[in-house]
Amino acid sequence: VSQNSEPAEQPGSARRTRTQRFEALSDGVFAIAITLLVLDLAVPTTPHSSHHLLNAIADDWPGYLGYLVSFSTIGAIWLGHNALTDYLDQVDSFLLRLNLLLLLFVSFLPFPTRLLAEYINTGRAERVASTFYGLALLLCASLLSVLWRYAWHAHLVRPDVHDAELTLLRSRLTPGMVAYVLVIALGLLVPVAALVGYLLIALYFVFPVRLPRRRPRTT
Amino acid sequence: VSQNSEPAEQPGSARRTRTQRFEALSDGVFAIAITLLVLDLAVPTTPHSSHHLLNAIADDWPGYLGYLVSFSTIGAIWLGHNALTDYLDQVDSFLLRLNLLLLLFVSFLPFPTRLLAEYINTGRAERVASTFYGLALLLCASLLSVLWRYAWHAHLVRPDVHDAELTLLRSRLTPGMVAYVLVIALGLLVPVAALVGYLLIALYFVFPVRLPRRRPRTT
Amino acid sequence: VSQNSEPAEQPGSARRTRTQRFEALSDGVFAIAITLLVLDLAVPTTPHSSHHLLNAIADDWPGYLGYLVSFSTIGAIWLGHNALTDYLDQVDSFLLRLNLLLLLFVSFLPFPTRLLAEYINTGRAERVASTFYGLALLLCASLLSVLWRYAWHAHLVRPDVHDAELTLLRSRLTPGMVAYVLVIALGLLVPVAALVGYLLIALYFVFPVRLPRRRPRTT
Amino acid sequence: VSQNSEPAEQPGSARRTRTQRFEALSDGVFAIAITLLVLDLAVPTTPHSSHHLLNAIADDWPGYLGYLVSFSTIGAIWLGHNALTDYLDQVDSFLLRLNLLLLLFVSFLPFPTRLLAEYINTGRAERVASTFYGLALLLCASLLSVLWRYAWHAHLVRPDVHDAELTLLRSRLTPGMVAYVLVIALGLLVPVAALVGYLLIALYFVFPVRLPRRRPRTT
Repeated sequence: VSQNSEPAEQPGSARRTRTQRFEALSDGVFAIAITLLVLDLAVPTTPHSSHHLLNAIADDWPGYLGYLVSFSTIGAIWLGHNALTDYLDQVDSFLLRLNLLLLLFVSFLPFPTRLLAEYINTGRAERVASTFYGLALLLCASLLSVLWRYAWHAHLVRPDVHDAELTLLRSRLTPGMVAYVLVIALGLLVPVAALVGYLLIALYFVFPVRLPRRRPRTT
Repeated sequence: VSQNSEPAEQPGSARRTRTQRFEALSDGVFAIAITLLVLDLAVPTTPHSSHHLLNAIADDWPGYLGYLVSFSTIGAIWLGHNALTDYLDQVDSFLLRLNLLLLLFVSFLPFPTRLLAEYINTGRAERVASTFYGLALLLCASLLSVLWRYAWHAHLVRPDVHDAELTLLRSRLTPGMVAYVLVIALGLLVPVAALVGYLLIALYFVFPVRLPRRRPRTT
Repeated sequence: VSQNSEPAEQPGSARRTRTQRFEALSDGVFAIAITLLVLDLAVPTTPHSSHHLLNAIADDWPGYLGYLVSFSTIGAIWLGHNALTDYLDQVDSFLLRLNLLLLLFVSFLPFPTRLLAEYINTGRAERVASTFYGLALLLCASLLSVLWRYAWHAHLVRPDVHDAELTLLRSRLTPGMVAYVLVIALGLLVPVAALVGYLLIALYFVFPVRLPRRRPRTT
Repeated sequence: VSQNSEPAEQPGSARRTRTQRFEALSDGVFAIAITLLVLDLAVPTTPHSSHHLLNAIADDWPGYLGYLVSFSTIGAIWLGHNALTDYLDQVDSFLLRLNLLLLLFVSFLPFPTRLLAEYINTGRAERVASTFYGLALLLCASLLSVLWRYAWHAHLVRPDVHDAELTLLRSRLTPGMVAYVLVIALGLLVPVAALVGYLLIALYFVFPVRLPRRRPRTT
């Protein structure tokens, strides 16, 4: 790249700098959102004995499960975001803004997680908490899908790329979003089951069932 | 750059390292400030049914709107900061300090946001909260403007740059600051309307109405 | 690398970009987890005189000790992670996921730290808090060990590397994990002693007793 | 550097990667510590009118002043850290650990800041809060000084460097530490005056009174 003597080369290198900060802000927000989740795990304050503390921790399982689901979902979105930016040639103005919208939903996730931890399995208002949570997860996945489609159509992704990770992301986003809609509907009947469903969808995004060993090595 | 054999070249490369940490600290503060906002969204604690929870969430709309306004404003300032640093050749001592001052106001924003969420639409002290919030937004935009002007006058920005994003930033900062003053005045009469006004100004900074498609592509 | 004209070279450079974001997310989570610990140090609210405040601060010594242990442990894991990634040629899909699992446990650490600060030395439930804390530390060290073994077996680490820091990490991980098991058992008898034990293990990971001076210098 | 064909060159490039993560963790901790300060600004909850809210905000001036002092101090330490790393050729094991110790004190700063905001100007225990705060600031400045001295003696800093910023840092660290000791003593007599003293020391570190214009420009 640096041997290129065209005057158009300088804006190109500026573009690449901009990609760096686009990634830096994104990684910052992902890292903070994923780490803030722990603040919502409440330390039991009442127990007077080891036995009571164990029970109090065990009783808070929806909090831990919600923590795990949100962590897995943010992790899955980061993996997808990471796979996408790996193949970005450049970033344009519109992608920067779409990305801010994705970060808005990602950084918002700790709130529905807290709502869920507060209301699930209490017999009070758990359908609202479960649906609200599912919609937030669906919005994150949808925005990642929009980001990916825009980058593709605006020719920001190198067209010759055949990457296992990116193929995996692309092939799973649409079924994943359909699954979110189904699990949100399930949550109206059995809210706790929806929580397990959200975890399974996140793991479906995260785990490359058959792909990790096929990659060429340079060793 | 690396073919340059002058002894002055080494300080030049050190300067560039410094630009990296200048950007890293800034991106860190922007990412944290934008993500901390979610901590101020309170989970309703009283509702006993789905119906009550939906109402409680709906009643907290100033909190969500404030979240959206602050997120958009920090996002807009980040876009401007990003456009500016893309064209920085080097960073000098004074710019580092001006930037710390900008970060001071950006990292302070979650506080007036909380104040606003607490007092807006309660009939109590909302004029103070709305004005305080508007002044904080105005200070952020003004510092970004000062940063930009200093970088330009100290020849830290490459003078041959014609970038759509940078032109957009420059052409909108002054009208944006005038708009903040007007909306702060409006807020003394109708505090809630000011909140909508702040959102519109942030979106005005964020959206490049006619520019995103004109950029040359290298594909 | 850039002189290599094979078509396989491009995916290779993409791989390297991915390493950058893998490191950026990890550093973000480490930095946030290590800094969030301070939020759990409670400011005493009751004292009416300097004498009372000094006593109140002194009485909270388990909180400060827990802060120090968790800070040292996260610091030690970061040093190990840092030594490992220094010698990574590339990152594959599976390592990215293993790393997310490590970050899950690292970002979870503030919770058992809070639990410990709340219950240690109160005569109530301190065995549960101490064991829970030890298991979390053990999980972090184990995951770092798994990460290291996987990277080695999948040929992601350059095989010709002989680094003092990496040798130190490798030679201490297994004894460190055995020590965690012993100290967890000790904690069932004397919970406070376990806290000191956890600190010693973290310092054992952190301090390169005899190695730091042997490194070749390029000056 | 890349033309160097010695086998020792590879570890050298690994060293540089390590410098990147050393900086990334540091910038993360600085950014988070500086942004977390805002969480300690309490939103007044009692006021029923604009007049009361203005009074409540005005009454909390020690909170705002403490925020400003801690922000300025962390900013000053970051500037010094930044100037130092700009001239680091490499990082060795011991410097990594010294840096973790500096980050321990920096990330701890929000706690004495909170203590100060709670007790200053209340007539209760303010001497303890003020001294505790001053000692924390002194520890941060001392560690930065130790870091700088170690880097110099271990030949990690390029010896031919004559940088205005670095000279400034070096020439001000020792008087600054003496000033901290004096202001801590002053705080035993007049705690509020100490707060102003701490702010002046931070600004003394931050502002390069006569140096910023002497730097050569490459434009």
